[in-house]
Amino acid sequence: MSFTPVQSDDVAIATIRTLAADVVAKANSGHPGAPMGMAPAAHVLFSRFVNANPKNSKWFNRDRFVLSNGCALQYVLLHLLGYKLSMDDLKAFRQLDSLTPGHPEAGHTDGVEVTTGPLGQGFGNGVGLAMAQAHLAATFNKDGFELIKNYTYVFCGDGCLMEGVASEAASLAGHLQLGNLIVVYDDNHISIDGDTNVAFTENVDQRFMSYGWQVLVVENGDTDLASIHNAIAAAKQEKNKPTIIRLKTTIGYGSKQQGTHGVHGSPLKADDIQALKTKFGLPADQSFYVPQATYDAYAEVAKRGAALEAEWNSLLTAYGQKYPKEHAELVRRIAGGLPENWQQSLPVYKPSDSAVASRKLSEIVLTAITPALPELFGGSADLTGSNLTKVKGTTDFQPPSTGLGSYAGTYIRFGVREHGMGAIANGIAAYGGIIPFVATFLNFVSYAAGATRLSALSGHQVIWVATHDSIGLGEDGPTHQPIETAIHLRATPNLAFWRPADGNETSAAYYSAITSKKTPSVLSLSRQNLPNLEGSTIEKALKGGYVVHEEQSEDLTIVSAGSEVSIAIEAAAKLKAEGIKTRVVSLPCWHTFDQQSEEYRLSVLRSGAPILSLEALSTAGWQKYSHEQYGLPGWGASGPYQKVYEKFGITGSNIASVGKKVVNFYKQKGGPVVSPLVKAF
Amino acid sequence: MSFTPVQSDDVAIATIRTLAADVVAKANSGHPGAPMGMAPAAHVLFSRFVNANPKNSKWFNRDRFVLSNGCALQYVLLHLLGYKLSMDDLKAFRQLDSLTPGHPEAGHTDGVEVTTGPLGQGFGNGVGLAMAQAHLAATFNKDGFELIKNYTYVFCGDGCLMEGVASEAASLAGHLQLGNLIVVYDDNHISIDGDTNVAFTENVDQRFMSYGWQVLVVENGDTDLASIHNAIAAAKQEKNKPTIIRLKTTIGYGSKQQGTHGVHGSPLKADDIQALKTKFGLPADQSFYVPQATYDAYAEVAKRGAALEAEWNSLLTAYGQKYPKEHAELVRRIAGGLPENWQQSLPVYKPSDSAVASRKLSEIVLTAITPALPELFGGSADLTGSNLTKVKGTTDFQPPSTGLGSYAGTYIRFGVREHGMGAIANGIAAYGGIIPFVATFLNFVSYAAGATRLSALSGHQVIWVATHDSIGLGEDGPTHQPIETAIHLRATPNLAFWRPADGNETSAAYYSAITSKKTPSVLSLSRQNLPNLEGSTIEKALKGGYVVHEEQSEDLTIVSAGSEVSIAIEAAAKLKAEGIKTRVVSLPCWHTFDQQSEEYRLSVLRSGAPILSLEALSTAGWQKYSHEQYGLPGWGASGPYQKVYEKFGITGSNIASVGKKVVNFYKQKGGPVVSPLVKAF
Ligand SMILES: [Ca+2]
Ligand SMILES: [Ca+2]
Repeated sequence: MSFTPVQSDDVAIATIRTLAADVVAKANSGHPGAPMGMAPAAHVLFSRFVNANPKNSKWFNRDRFVLSNGCALQYVLLHLLGYKLSMDDLKAFRQLDSLTPGHPEAGHTDGVEVTTGPLGQGFGNGVGLAMAQAHLAATFNKDGFELIKNYTYVFCGDGCLMEGVASEAASLAGHLQLGNLIVVYDDNHISIDGDTNVAFTENVDQRFMSYGWQVLVVENGDTDLASIHNAIAAAKQEKNKPTIIRLKTTIGYGSKQQGTHGVHGSPLKADDIQALKTKFGLPADQSFYVPQATYDAYAEVAKRGAALEAEWNSLLTAYGQKYPKEHAELVRRIAGGLPENWQQSLPVYKPSDSAVASRKLSEIVLTAITPALPELFGGSADLTGSNLTKVKGTTDFQPPSTGLGSYAGTYIRFGVREHGMGAIANGIAAYGGIIPFVATFLNFVSYAAGATRLSALSGHQVIWVATHDSIGLGEDGPTHQPIETAIHLRATPNLAFWRPADGNETSAAYYSAITSKKTPSVLSLSRQNLPNLEGSTIEKALKGGYVVHEEQSEDLTIVSAGSEVSIAIEAAAKLKAEGIKTRVVSLPCWHTFDQQSEEYRLSVLRSGAPILSLEALSTAGWQKYSHEQYGLPGWGASGPYQKVYEKFGITGSNIASVGKKVVNFYKQKGGPVVSPLVKAF
Repeated sequence: MSFTPVQSDDVAIATIRTLAADVVAKANSGHPGAPMGMAPAAHVLFSRFVNANPKNSKWFNRDRFVLSNGCALQYVLLHLLGYKLSMDDLKAFRQLDSLTPGHPEAGHTDGVEVTTGPLGQGFGNGVGLAMAQAHLAATFNKDGFELIKNYTYVFCGDGCLMEGVASEAASLAGHLQLGNLIVVYDDNHISIDGDTNVAFTENVDQRFMSYGWQVLVVENGDTDLASIHNAIAAAKQEKNKPTIIRLKTTIGYGSKQQGTHGVHGSPLKADDIQALKTKFGLPADQSFYVPQATYDAYAEVAKRGAALEAEWNSLLTAYGQKYPKEHAELVRRIAGGLPENWQQSLPVYKPSDSAVASRKLSEIVLTAITPALPELFGGSADLTGSNLTKVKGTTDFQPPSTGLGSYAGTYIRFGVREHGMGAIANGIAAYGGIIPFVATFLNFVSYAAGATRLSALSGHQVIWVATHDSIGLGEDGPTHQPIETAIHLRATPNLAFWRPADGNETSAAYYSAITSKKTPSVLSLSRQNLPNLEGSTIEKALKGGYVVHEEQSEDLTIVSAGSEVSIAIEAAAKLKAEGIKTRVVSLPCWHTFDQQSEEYRLSVLRSGAPILSLEALSTAGWQKYSHEQYGLPGWGASGPYQKVYEKFGITGSNIASVGKKVVNFYKQKGGPVVSPLVKAF
């Protein structure tokens, strides 16, 4: 397939460049340089290669496009291609409540696959999108029915390649031989600090070859459309390696300041924009001008996309006739529905069942539900034996040539790459048809904080299996013991942080994580064994908080989470022996509890007696649910875990004595004790 | 310098291997495989190359050693070399309150330079240690007085190299041509998930060449001491590139399970240890056995180190005679003292001074104090023009051959590498003589969370200039607007998170950050302009919290921080006009405020009237200091910042109306209003 230029090419490219300049100038904020430089590549890619239907941005077999260096280019393209983004939307760029916020957000703007802007994330998402395609293709395609065969195209800049998250994802992508992944690297030699010479002088070609990528170079990305075309075509030809096309461009091409960081992050001046338009043969006095030839050219592209979707729909129907079972399953997974009664496989526990670590309880859940939920696709950042995430009998997701597994395999070996793993999981979730899970120690979820917040902002269903979740990990010590991690994740909007106390709560956490289609979940799990509690059930735990041990006319309520709930119950028993009636509330998920009715919440954390919180982490945040807080005053300690708990006074007997102090204090204080949930507004 | 084997070599290596096995076995926890595999390299390095004095672990010109894959090897070496670590300490490995916690912690154990265990961090620290050496050498060395000329040696494993933080640091180290940095990579083909083939198949040699490193390979790291020696010698010869020595080893060498991940993270069995000892000619029935020949050999090493220090001390004295001014300065900086009266250069503001963004106020401080504090050495992750961290007239820290600066330059171009930057800063701080500062948007400090927590755990003085600290950044929108970041950092023990409200508070934040020698500080700074407040002074702000607007017999107190304090004051004025007396408390640093006397804290957040908190971030944590909380209920929004504030009701008039609700609510409730700081224990 060789490149055939048409008249509309130059016009279209000029339109993208000037429209990007206008959009940024009107907002008086944004980054004009990169869109202007990347316009030729964007035009060649969308006019000649991308299979997508702007009239149905959710067509499952569409090619995925990720603008990792998120900027106005995405909006300009979506508008020209005919997605649900009007010229008025472009004019509202970076204005309140517009469809065109500062950086593209998935779920907010039609046609945006993943949220980008924070550098490096989009690159990682792209690897995830490509993994999802490879996995679903291997799972569902049949001879003559290549239903899942799209490419993932990622545009990125210098900044993305400097970020470690991209390095991690790139190394894994090379290992996985993702021939369906094509990255176009905008090598314009400029970043915010000026010439990349000041900090970024590595040999990018050699680096990507070291990862096992195909590396192609386009010397003149400003005007040589044929070379751009040929590079993308060659990238598509290479089936066993991801490709990076190093496209040498001039940032802000056409501006008087082209090639300098003056065009990176601030609007062009009015006279510069006028000169630019004149130079490219567009009317200098018109803003937001799109020649009809450009609209027409992209309308043809959209028509091609719609035809491709129609063709695909026929293929899907034929597939259904030949493979009704697989068809039903694929359709279900695309729609995001869950199989009927899957939840019946969730384990249920009685208090007489033996004590088990919640990481092990998690393994028991995964083992139980995996047969019912083939959409579970995930793995660990090189802690499989500690996170207990590999269900026996599952196959590794590996390139067949390695002899270690297949693309149909459901278990991913991420390597020690937490941040890359998080960004990849976002990409997998964005692809659809899959529920990704990832795993590491809770403490090292912090390494991936850049990705977890974007899961939450984008509404990606990603499940983090975060084990070794407190000083209860014992010997590894303070370097591995989270203190601040739980409140960090609890304070993240739209993220469900579950810290289950026993078997039933672990089942509840999974039920919630599996059914929350627009919310990521972090399951915080213990290394040490936990008893199964008398008062726990899956149903109660699903409220996010409930009374696990009830008393009437109590003197005290202890509210706790995870591995400390059983210690609270122990303390309550000791207090009862001394005549102090103590309720215990388990609060495994604040995010879920906060969504319950006020009436329910006030019945759990009720007025009338003081509430003491207990958790072997920072107390920060517990003040919302309690009058008094017991937790860790600083870092943890290395030693057998029971001794570490003793050192910090997190034992039944010490908490009982703390509880007594609380009761006495409130007695002396006098007056009614009002629930901390009773608020003025 | 060629390698001359001596009889004690094999014995010493056998000792390291068996001692590591014993240490892990007694603890019944830990990682025996890596120390056993790295024993030959460790022995050759310490017996032939490392210049250090075990009797004075703080000798300034010592070679720095970093065990990035932190494990028992470090403790075994420190003991054998004669650091303050006894055999009893080794026997207490991973026991409570021992000097030998699960992973080495700086400041906890004599001779440990940096805290390692969380993978990749030590690699980044090593780059920082090497940068510090290069910088101080260029600053202080004179002809004939090479006072600062040490090497930094880093041992790391597969896991460290998979981590993005190491990729970032490695790329920068190559750019910076750090010839004083020597990394020994333990290429044993095993990580926790088993053979590295499952996830880590990149060409490491090629990757490091792409970064501009010298790459050397030792084919037999198990027994070929001469090759190990020659590689380290060649690494020292290369003055313009960092070197990585890929040392092929057998994990758990000598164990029956050698070469498998069975020896990675669990103790060897008793019979395996016995067989191991027999194999290496040591008594099979003795544990923790060190042949006298081994102690003797290392005593010689220690003697050499002591002599080197004595020689260096003489050189320093002679330097003092020839260069008294530089000598005094170097001695001051090594001791960590500050120049007299440096703080007199801190800017002081009056309310009539014009409104300025606190990122700009930060620039004004840096500009004012940099002449007095040459130990300030830092830069930005490619956001110099936004973070405003480059003081005019300062020179870039760059290899002279680039023509862009010199090693004496004080401004670092980190590139878009936040996590690497954080780890590097920890290494720079650990070197001594320097106060490192680093900069990015507050939101992207999250990318470096793995490093910031280790700053705090290790007590490294690192200053983060974290600008664009709320929805006040406006147009960039939710992807860039921190919500959960402040509470994450506030909940980190031993970390001072400052969110100054105006000029005087910004000066106070810097005063605190500069004088806190064992605590990292994050300065959270606004993009938008902030008025200078009537009631602020540096002295008051240094308490971490103070009354910025006083009223007697108040109806309400509003407690706030950073850019919202002036909005609180505006609300207070509106309320006053309606007869509601409202105090305003500014709480720029919780960590500092919490250290004040109870009496002081209770005078600021006093009983008698309800306290309402206000911050344009998550409200999580504010319940500790207030009865009611106003903040962001979810993600931010993209738009001009004033409109974004309006959208979320963070304006003087809305906060006044919220304040009225609070006052009415507490009136209706009746009874005394007690400060939230009054606690039962
Ligand atoms: Ca660039
Ligand atoms: Ca290894």
